[in-house]
Amino acid sequence: MGLNYASRMEGIKASEIRELLKLTERTEVISFAGGLPAPELFPIEEMKLVAVKVLEEMGVQALQYSATEGFNPLREKIASRMTKAGINTTRDHILITSGSQQGLDFAGKVFLNPGDYVVCESPSYLGAINAFKAYQCQFIEVDTDENGMIMEDLERKLASHSNVKMIYVIPDFQNPSGRSWNLERRKQLLQIAKTHNLPIVEDNPYGELRFEGEMLPSIKSMDDEGRVIFLGTFSKTFCPGLRIGWVCAEDEVLQKFIMVKQGADLQSNSMSQRELDMFMNLYDLDEHIEKIKNVYRSRRNVMLEAIKKEFPAEVTCTYPEGGLFTWCTMPEHLNARDLMEVAILRHVAFVPGGSFFPNGGRENTFRMNYSNMPEEKIIEGVKRIGEVLREALAK
Amino acid sequence: MGLNYASRMEGIKASEIRELLKLTERTEVISFAGGLPAPELFPIEEMKLVAVKVLEEMGVQALQYSATEGFNPLREKIASRMTKAGINTTRDHILITSGSQQGLDFAGKVFLNPGDYVVCESPSYLGAINAFKAYQCQFIEVDTDENGMIMEDLERKLASHSNVKMIYVIPDFQNPSGRSWNLERRKQLLQIAKTHNLPIVEDNPYGELRFEGEMLPSIKSMDDEGRVIFLGTFSKTFCPGLRIGWVCAEDEVLQKFIMVKQGADLQSNSMSQRELDMFMNLYDLDEHIEKIKNVYRSRRNVMLEAIKKEFPAEVTCTYPEGGLFTWCTMPEHLNARDLMEVAILRHVAFVPGGSFFPNGGRENTFRMNYSNMPEEKIIEGVKRIGEVLREALAK
Repeated sequence: MGLNYASRMEGIKASEIRELLKLTERTEVISFAGGLPAPELFPIEEMKLVAVKVLEEMGVQALQYSATEGFNPLREKIASRMTKAGINTTRDHILITSGSQQGLDFAGKVFLNPGDYVVCESPSYLGAINAFKAYQCQFIEVDTDENGMIMEDLERKLASHSNVKMIYVIPDFQNPSGRSWNLERRKQLLQIAKTHNLPIVEDNPYGELRFEGEMLPSIKSMDDEGRVIFLGTFSKTFCPGLRIGWVCAEDEVLQKFIMVKQGADLQSNSMSQRELDMFMNLYDLDEHIEKIKNVYRSRRNVMLEAIKKEFPAEVTCTYPEGGLFTWCTMPEHLNARDLMEVAILRHVAFVPGGSFFPNGGRENTFRMNYSNMPEEKIIEGVKRIGEVLREALAK
Repeated sequence: MGLNYASRMEGIKASEIRELLKLTERTEVISFAGGLPAPELFPIEEMKLVAVKVLEEMGVQALQYSATEGFNPLREKIASRMTKAGINTTRDHILITSGSQQGLDFAGKVFLNPGDYVVCESPSYLGAINAFKAYQCQFIEVDTDENGMIMEDLERKLASHSNVKMIYVIPDFQNPSGRSWNLERRKQLLQIAKTHNLPIVEDNPYGELRFEGEMLPSIKSMDDEGRVIFLGTFSKTFCPGLRIGWVCAEDEVLQKFIMVKQGADLQSNSMSQRELDMFMNLYDLDEHIEKIKNVYRSRRNVMLEAIKKEFPAEVTCTYPEGGLFTWCTMPEHLNARDLMEVAILRHVAFVPGGSFFPNGGRENTFRMNYSNMPEEKIIEGVKRIGEVLREALAK
């Protein structure tokens, strides 16, 4: 029949990670592919109590339509957690979203015209790239090193491009690189954004999962103009199945996000918002996060040690001080997509790195997740990938 | 500071209904404004049991990331309910969305380029108009009568417009008019869509709430080409707070919607999908829908009787055989927005009809909802509006 689709559909592809996840769902596969939290840490027993209590105390409201902005007590708790983390804000600057992925989609919708440029780290988060692509933008990838985005490269590229509309960064335990920005770079980025009058979308799904080292101030915490749109989520600190994230932004910008939310899905889940709020009333979320950090720190250690032992020396990996990922770089002639095909036959999976570069290239990279597998499986899985790598290098 | 937004933001306004809802949330207000289900029918006790059982039997999966397409057992149940209703389909043609509002947003994203025309009923659902406007489309409003869209007007307007991309209709108990299309018009629309090779978005949130008369086949049930995208929801037959709707479409089209969903929010709530599925395992949803229909039928009767008694004869209202709304038309010189300001002072609310006309005009109309208020409040509220109308006519 052949229907006529919108031009934007030409640029939208199925997410390679979501497709991969289907392959790796089989229990025999040791998967380092997803960005899945450790399921054994989900507070299932607590959630039983919480669900019943929410239905008893506010069942009608939990099942009814509610405000687009979100459940006020939850917005207040988020604002107060952010204030503790150095971002002085209030409930009125918080919009609850369906995961922070929705915040990314909305950022694209609010800021991007077809042909506009988004500045991002090279590599950057695949899900953000896909969300923005739906608005037919182009990408300026800025080089990164172990301290974050390289400011000289950013300034050079901003000088040589017009219609740049937005800067997208993940300064804490970046996805996919696992790296964090140092303080200097954070300050510089804000200054440069000011000079060019650009909004910064600061995506921070992992910041609360720091295993070691000192917490660094978010870019939003240094923003005295309302230039930074901060995206947060409970997917990594609580559980992703409830789909609760948030946008923190100043009045005018947040109003735009709220209007976009109305058209997109009216509001986030009334019940889940109240459950999360009730959980924080009854339990200590920070204590829960401590548990997560302890497990992930240990898994990171196990993975990095196994990599040191099993991977050929030509393959280098980053050292994440928090978050969920390490990022591996192979000699340039190796292609991670090809190796993934070999790996999956041996029941082990990672994500080939090419998709994290919106303008393509860098197929000699891959991302490894350590949060979702128990330690013995991490050791076994890294060993198998090590074999695949050795064989490829021996060819 | 003044950030540069996308051009599409010029066309996006806050939903008048969502803004109104804030005013009408005060308990002293008798509100016929929202499209809210009757909260006293929410299965709160059953949901307690359901929530605990889901967490016990599949707590990890309910709290973890899951497939973009949705929870398979729920997709199967939806496909089987649709098949019973005459749409022969399977799980693979169902995508779970965050309410059917998300299906509307996705339809816009998949089909609309800036400047494209969407054909819709005049009046049409405000939420759909807002969702589509985000894609910078224009609207062709087609006249309607008590049997649905008037086909002669549709053909005339299609002949005189190029770049029409999509037809959007609500054939059952339309929002806002409460009217349903007869069989002939449904068949004709499909034929005309075929001639012009246009997709039809058939929005059906109320179809299962028929109080009387015979069920009419959906347009999708007569679609042998995959031209119709059917949007369904559990918001009116179960509860809206869980935000569970669905898209039913053929392979290629559904794939587009799935890719768009990945970028928009990855997936719908894992927990709520499993709860709804579990509810349908343990209880009879159709029995629950019967209860809803009985209450709404009775409320409709009470409202229409009260209107007959209290409204001046110059104000006419539609007779809905199901759904949530009746639609009132006043003499042309009256403006429902002005009257709403008077009404709210007397603690009663409706939705002025102007917003349901994407190209404006027809300010002498308003929408009345009967599902959300108990009968004694319906009587009292209609009486108050009757007074406002009489006074306005006497001026």
